Formats: sequence, C-alpha cells, structure tokens
Amino acid sequence: MNIVLLDPRQTESEVWSISAKRQLEHLHRHLELKAGDTLKVGIQNGKRHLTQVVDVSETAVRLKPLYEEPVPAKLPVTLIVAMPRPKVLRRLVMDAVTLGVEKIILLHSYRVDKSYWQTPFLQQLDQYVTLGLEQAGDTIAPKVEIYKRFKPFVEDILPSLISANCPAYVAHPYSDAKMPFAIQHSCTIVIGPEGGFIPYEIDLLVKNGCQAMSLGSRIIRTETVIPYVLGRLFSG
Amino acid sequence: MNIVLLDPRQTESEVWSISAKRQLEHLHRHLELKAGDTLKVGIQNGKRHLTQVVDVSETAVRLKPLYEEPVPAKLPVTLIVAMPRPKVLRRLVMDAVTLGVEKIILLHSYRVDKSYWQTPFLQQLDQYVTLGLEQAGDTIAPKVEIYKRFKPFVEDILPSLISANCPAYVAHPYSDAKMPFAIQHSCTIVIGPEGGFIPYEIDLLVKNGCQAMSLGSRIIRTETVIPYVLGRLFSG
Repeated sequence: MNIVLLDPRQTESEVWSISAKRQLEHLHRHLELKAGDTLKVGIQNGKRHLTQVVDVSETAVRLKPLYEEPVPAKLPVTLIVAMPRPKVLRRLVMDAVTLGVEKIILLHSYRVDKSYWQTPFLQQLDQYVTLGLEQAGDTIAPKVEIYKRFKPFVEDILPSLISANCPAYVAHPYSDAKMPFAIQHSCTIVIGPEGGFIPYEIDLLVKNGCQAMSLGSRIIRTETVIPYVLGRLFSG
Repeated sequence: MNIVLLDPRQTESEVWSISAKRQLEHLHRHLELKAGDTLKVGIQNGKRHLTQVVDVSETAVRLKPLYEEPVPAKLPVTLIVAMPRPKVLRRLVMDAVTLGVEKIILLHSYRVDKSYWQTPFLQQLDQYVTLGLEQAGDTIAPKVEIYKRFKPFVEDILPSLISANCPAYVAHPYSDAKMPFAIQHSCTIVIGPEGGFIPYEIDLLVKNGCQAMSLGSRIIRTETVIPYVLGRLFSG
C-alpha cells in the first residue's frame, strides 16, 4: 500500500478520515503514524494528495491535505485475458491494475475450466482493483468486464476494441511474427489460458482483426506473461 | 509442466523411465497417457527430446526417445534481487527460471526482514528451478547464489559481474535516467526489496558500477517487476 485510497465522502470536510479496518490495520502494523507525519492519500477516481496526520486513534486516522501530487499515467491498453485459475485471479488483476492497464476483460475460452466462473473471488474484483491502485500510487480504477461466451465476444465486441490507431495482438507461440515492442500507440492485447487457445479460437481472433504474435519459444504462465508483454510493448 | 525433466541416470538405457511421484501424479491427472502417445522430455542440463510412450503403470511411465528438439535460448542476464518474503520466493525463482535468466542471486538488504533467511523454502530452491524449467520447456538449470551480507557482496562480488559488454542496472524510481530497452548485449539487473533500497545502498551500488535507472512512477511489487523489466530489456 503506497497510497491510502479514500471514498470521496471521507474527504468532504476540512479534516479527512481513514476508518476502513483493512487500511487502519495496515497503517498500524507497517507505519508508526503519529500527529505531524505525512501520508500519501488518493481519492477514488480523483486526485492524489500529500496529507499531514492530525491525530491517530484505534478507530481512525485523521488527516489534512497539504498539496496535490500527480497521478501516474495509464498504459493505453485493453488487456483481454482468458479467465485464470481462481487462486491466481487476485494477483493477475492486481498486477494488471498496478501496471496501469486501462481496461481488463476476463474471457471464457475452451481450455478454461467452467468451474472457474463459480469462484467467489469474482465477487471481490473491486477489492483487487483497489489493492492494485494502492500498490501503484494510482487513483483511477480501470474498467473490468466479464464475458463468459467466447464466440459472441470475439465477433460482436472485440472489433469495437480495434482500430487503425489501436491494433490487437494475440500472444501465440506458433506465429512467425514477433510481438512488437516500444509501440507509441494504444493497443489491445489478448492472452490465452494455460495450455493456450485452441486453433479454432486463434482463427476466430485473427478473422476478427487480431494479429497473432510470438513471444519466443518459452512457455510462460498467464500471470507472468502479462507484466512481461506489457514491459515489452510499452518500453519506448 | 510442458516437459518432464529427467535425471540423466533415468535415460541411460534404451527405454527411459519416469518414476518420480510428483511427475507421475501430474501426468496421471492432466494427461491420459497411453502407449504410443508422444511426450516432451528433457534431460537435466542436457538435451530435449520428443519421446513415445512404451507403457504406463501406477509406478512408472516408460518411454523411447524419437528425436531431439531445440532447447530455448537463455536471456543473457544475471538477476540480483533482494530476498523476497518467503511466500513469494517460490514464484519469483520459478518465474525468473521460466523467463530464461542465466544466473539468480538472492541478496540481503536493509529492508529485508532478517527472518526471511530462516525460511525452510530456501532448502527447496532446486525444486523451484526444476518447476521453472519444466514450465518453460528448458533443461539447463541457472545458477542460484545467496549472499546474506549486502556490503561485502556489492564491494567484492558485484564488480566481477559488470564489464563494458555487460552493464549493471539498478531499478530506482528516483533516477532521471530511464531503464534501457531492446538491448543487444548481456547485463546484470538489480531489483530492491518491498520499500526499495535505502539511499546508502543505492549509493554503494552506484559507486561499484551500477547505473540507477527508472521504470516510471508506478510502484511495482518485486515479483511483478522482474518479468516487466525482462520484457523491456530483451524486447529487441
């Protein structure tokens, strides 16, 4: 947690207040905050501020804003990823948010076990987004969308996410073309499940405007390939 | 597991044998192997082969090699990373191996909790390396070294890992210089702990030949920054 994200309603009066249990526990455990200390705070989907602690109690930390700080820029990318195993969902979403992805889409695919869609973790996506923002020092929540049917998504929704200024790349080990790097435009990137997309899915993605691009001959886990490909695409 | 790594002793006769419990369990659970199927197999620190299954029992899968396959190239990089929290050690080492790091060094630093060095997971590094190789389809284990004292490592060992053809970069958010990308030479990369290196440590790293390079204003977790920076450095 590198900033504390507050609901705008907690920042309406002159003195702001942190009262959420998770945030208080983190602050009490990791920072020995006392009156006069400074603390980085963000307002959900708003500005980021350096604040000064007014007082600290068991149930609240009260703050006064000192001055605004810049919010880090997003990466101009829509990340479409096959729904991962429930136990990596939290980390995958949190990492994508931390790295600055503008929009995250979780998609069904042939090799996604149908049971994954039953996980209670899908009810906690907002929390994972908050954790990712607090890690990065960002305040602007990306959109997260879910599509449980592959074909209707690829045929009806995906084309609206592709344009001349915003190509779409699907990571595919058997392509001869190499994933681009240091791009200076926005893009949509599609990452398959463990075991990869099946040939039918790759064909449908390509027919609907995606370019299949290889990341080399190493087989990389979904949750690891996301920072790897983002570091590559936006290195410029 | 995208290849099964075997001890060279299991591949000495004409028919090879998989008998390790972990590997058998994986094969029985995820692949319904039967005689005649093909299976990718690597020999530890040796070649990689496509094999054909001779027979399958509860206690062994027996194979015949068909032909050699190429082993993926390594990234020409030494990764020096502050010792992470025990619960991310496995993933961090496994990911670095999967991505093809040639040498991994785990280093103490001021913000590394001393208790991390007591974790029993440090006894399992060889297993994590094997898992990373089996994920990537690689056979060649990188070296993993441990240095529990920061200053002697930086002053006495680090300079030997730096040369004109192999610069060293330390990821540092407060540097004006940007981390390079698409490099065409080997390098040494230094990644700090959660909370970052302290100024004394950055100074000592720079005095001993490292260049401090920024990855932007987002604060990224250690285990996430590793694939991110490797994707960036070796994008060319």
